[in-house]
Amino acid sequence: MSIIDELTEALGAETVLTGAAIGERYRSDESLTGRVLPMAVIRPRTVEEVSTALRICNAHGQPVVPQGGLAGLAGGANASGGDVAISLENLAGIEEIDTAAGTMTVKAGTVLEVAQNAAAEAGMLLAIDLGARGSCQIGGNISTNAGGIRVIRHGVTRDNVLGLEVVLADGTVLSMLNKMTKNNTGYDLRQFFIGAEGTLGIITRAVVKLKPRPPARSTALVALENYDAVVALLGRARRELEALSAFEAMWENFVRFNCEAAGISFFETAYPFLVIVEEDSDGSDAARDRFEAFLGRALEDGLIVDALIAQSEKETQRFWSVREAYMMGQLLPSLINLDVSLPIGSIGDYARACEAALLERFPDAHVSFFGHIGDSNLHVAISVGEASAEELHAVDEIAYDLVKAFGGSISAEHGIGTLKRPYLGCSRSAEELDAMRRIKLALDPKGILNPGKVI
Amino acid sequence: MSIIDELTEALGAETVLTGAAIGERYRSDESLTGRVLPMAVIRPRTVEEVSTALRICNAHGQPVVPQGGLAGLAGGANASGGDVAISLENLAGIEEIDTAAGTMTVKAGTVLEVAQNAAAEAGMLLAIDLGARGSCQIGGNISTNAGGIRVIRHGVTRDNVLGLEVVLADGTVLSMLNKMTKNNTGYDLRQFFIGAEGTLGIITRAVVKLKPRPPARSTALVALENYDAVVALLGRARRELEALSAFEAMWENFVRFNCEAAGISFFETAYPFLVIVEEDSDGSDAARDRFEAFLGRALEDGLIVDALIAQSEKETQRFWSVREAYMMGQLLPSLINLDVSLPIGSIGDYARACEAALLERFPDAHVSFFGHIGDSNLHVAISVGEASAEELHAVDEIAYDLVKAFGGSISAEHGIGTLKRPYLGCSRSAEELDAMRRIKLALDPKGILNPGKVI
Repeated sequence: MSIIDELTEALGAETVLTGAAIGERYRSDESLTGRVLPMAVIRPRTVEEVSTALRICNAHGQPVVPQGGLAGLAGGANASGGDVAISLENLAGIEEIDTAAGTMTVKAGTVLEVAQNAAAEAGMLLAIDLGARGSCQIGGNISTNAGGIRVIRHGVTRDNVLGLEVVLADGTVLSMLNKMTKNNTGYDLRQFFIGAEGTLGIITRAVVKLKPRPPARSTALVALENYDAVVALLGRARRELEALSAFEAMWENFVRFNCEAAGISFFETAYPFLVIVEEDSDGSDAARDRFEAFLGRALEDGLIVDALIAQSEKETQRFWSVREAYMMGQLLPSLINLDVSLPIGSIGDYARACEAALLERFPDAHVSFFGHIGDSNLHVAISVGEASAEELHAVDEIAYDLVKAFGGSISAEHGIGTLKRPYLGCSRSAEELDAMRRIKLALDPKGILNPGKVI
Repeated sequence: MSIIDELTEALGAETVLTGAAIGERYRSDESLTGRVLPMAVIRPRTVEEVSTALRICNAHGQPVVPQGGLAGLAGGANASGGDVAISLENLAGIEEIDTAAGTMTVKAGTVLEVAQNAAAEAGMLLAIDLGARGSCQIGGNISTNAGGIRVIRHGVTRDNVLGLEVVLADGTVLSMLNKMTKNNTGYDLRQFFIGAEGTLGIITRAVVKLKPRPPARSTALVALENYDAVVALLGRARRELEALSAFEAMWENFVRFNCEAAGISFFETAYPFLVIVEEDSDGSDAARDRFEAFLGRALEDGLIVDALIAQSEKETQRFWSVREAYMMGQLLPSLINLDVSLPIGSIGDYARACEAALLERFPDAHVSFFGHIGDSNLHVAISVGEASAEELHAVDEIAYDLVKAFGGSISAEHGIGTLKRPYLGCSRSAEELDAMRRIKLALDPKGILNPGKVI
């Protein structure tokens, strides 16, 4: 009996898609680098079905690619050759919201925004948040340890996960649906699967933290003369704004590029740096006064040179559009969006060095920078026009070699997938890669889970 | 050549203590359950010496017990039989404080309080904090994923570690001294060693987070009528006190026991619950007013029935003494201090059930409760008088069986060590224990690191 027959017999024909029943969407994540469709797409509805599918695949040594919302940018969910994809899309739904403990128990295939809305209806905040919220799934967020714009206040996805249920390659179910903040009972196995991009197990359920929902927010767009001032303002914001919830820095030509694209403008002068500063608030006049006083002092001390405070939700949205407008540009085939992290104090120097090195090789290139500076995370937007594969490779090499030189990391929040795998050695030593391989071999001895990804 | 000769030749006689040179303090951690002295105590001064020591021990299959400040309560650092202890005490000192990045790079043997003071001198806060700060070491805090009283604001030790340097059993050095908040480059190997109690590798260096140092704090001691009110007050404090930094609940007879022991009193009435609520503050009148208004509303709404606000640092200390006075009692040989975690909403019911079950078996027992409720962490103070080993075992069984029934964990912050190892199955499944053993085998195939601990 073929493996497809065996899977179909065990799981039912409606769960195992083959041939023409496999839609185009299973080809690729948002990196749009997927080349082939998987041999079959399994869409289990229960943990037991995930376990059954993996047990059968493992017995056959059949490679398996876990797929969530396919919102990744690193090719981590793309199939290759004769892979079987396991899509979590039918394993979705919220199982419990516990407001006393501040937890939500949720199935892995639940779309992030659905979970966020359910938390909001219960008067709580699910703090994991990113641009792809309408399509990405909780299981994928956890498997890639997703970042986003709220990390400065609420941490990365890892910091928001209390419990996990995971199915290992051989079908073993690890049920670790812990709801407690503190739990020191042996190795914290949860951590092994967070950010492992589906290479160590398939996440089927999670307990995520819920926090009190802030009633309002104060938002400012401020202008600064240099990167040192940005770092100084960040330090001051951390000290003085108890509920600092975003600190997004944008370099001059990034702002110009986006404002032109979006047809908006804010200041008459083109300042070297703009920063969006946002604080959660109880909506009181006192909270607003404190926020304004913070900006007033920064202005008096010459730390910032101009500032706008949003007077309405509409204006808040408009401030954010200068940061998010870029997301549209991302869809342009010739625009590359790199995601790196560096020690905060080095980001300004890295940006200068990176721009100079890229312009030396590609004199007409567009190079601009923006990022979650408070999280040590920089994005680099690069366009070198119609480029050959060799030229694109040169762009990566220039940027990542400098990341290595500055003691940074080649992936802050996007993960490794397939696209960054050739450069993993820029950030991890041979000894570390060997330790990772030992772990992989221990948990997935036949190497069936997401082969060719990460390591 | 004997292994001791080989170690002495490689490391020097001043680094390898044997025989009478081994002081009594290497016998046991604070659980005082250590029975024998190690065969030798190695005190390396560099990472290279740790690596050399492990390489030699691994070649001989020689069991090794890592020792930090020996402040643990679970027997995790105690030697057995012919173990070699590796004490990190001479691998101490702060290497770098980066105020822009908010990081400290520190050697593992540094005493926590020394690191805290260095952070304070730089105007920053190292948020890892616990009672044993004057003797425990950073490496031990990380190896046990220590908790403490500031977790509600700053997280457990895991949440405060950015980078680690670790030596594996075979002497391989993993240098992962990352300073970035976000770093998604392959498996997050750091996480494997945090809380592994020295069974997977020896931590030699760490990068820990530093935060802005709060200039002041507001502290209140409040009285409540029942556990539901405690949970409701916690929820409200989380919503309304942006910088909530402690929430310590104490049950009535715990308060009575401690106040008598310390010769202090606060309220004329014996209330069912007292809670210490503390918020970090900028020291302004406005911050103090907000804190008082929070308590005023809780009083008006009948959530709390009485409240005292500390008017001086001395009074703050006095409030805290009702919580910390117990630490003295802990040294009484007949007093057992259990450390468990439970879903926050279940802690009141667990406490009632646990008290009833213990009193049924031991009618004259003292049973009282206190804990870091916001972190789902409960401590149980139990005295059954002069007890046999069998009776002590019965106490553990009664308390841990109920933890299992309530979906809790048998160790919140103390770890497993040797003392809780027989009960690990109350909190972890056979499948989880098997996965832990696979990881252990992958990283320490000869099983030389802290054998007999954790798993």
